[in-house]
Amino acid sequence: MFVSVSRLRIEVGRSDELVAAFRQRAGLVESHEGFVDLQVWRSDRDPAEVLMVSRWRDKDDFREYMRSSDHQVSHDRMDPLLRRAVKLERLESMHTYEVMAE
Amino acid sequence: MFVSVSRLRIEVGRSDELVAAFRQRAGLVESHEGFVDLQVWRSDRDPAEVLMVSRWRDKDDFREYMRSSDHQVSHDRMDPLLRRAVKLERLESMHTYEVMAE
Repeated sequence: MFVSVSRLRIEVGRSDELVAAFRQRAGLVESHEGFVDLQVWRSDRDPAEVLMVSRWRDKDDFREYMRSSDHQVSHDRMDPLLRRAVKLERLESMHTYEVMAE
Repeated sequence: MFVSVSRLRIEVGRSDELVAAFRQRAGLVESHEGFVDLQVWRSDRDPAEVLMVSRWRDKDDFREYMRSSDHQVSHDRMDPLLRRAVKLERLESMHTYEVMAE
């Protein structure tokens, strides 16, 4: 399984707003081939650090989605003020190695 | 949900060995109260970077496990040579925010 982790940094005090925006998102990704799940993680030590973690059957499925109009639409509907308050610090591509049945 | 991420760095060429060690582990953690799942992720760009990701109902469940003899036993049964080849670079504590049903 392929995992994409976007490590985001959000302006102090806007962390809740970012989490809420994810909850209210369009949900277009769910219908894409190979999509497994999407979670948002927030650091306990530093609430300005928010990780968007999505899992896919394989890397090509993720690439297809990134090239799709749905991805563009999802990004464009984000509040421009909130968008400017978020910085992508790091993008990680990983593969999972199951070590137990989920 | 609580997430613990251990970012490990393994000596070049021993990455497969580390993944195999996780697969052959004792599996003691599964029976612990509040345990959700455990995955091992390996970076696509840098195979020396391996993440151990465990999810728990809450942080206290994770703490209880870390204090348990099962955790000690799991750690102690690791090959000492392999153990010396692994460095814990960073330990992250996060909380998840579900953004879709899994």
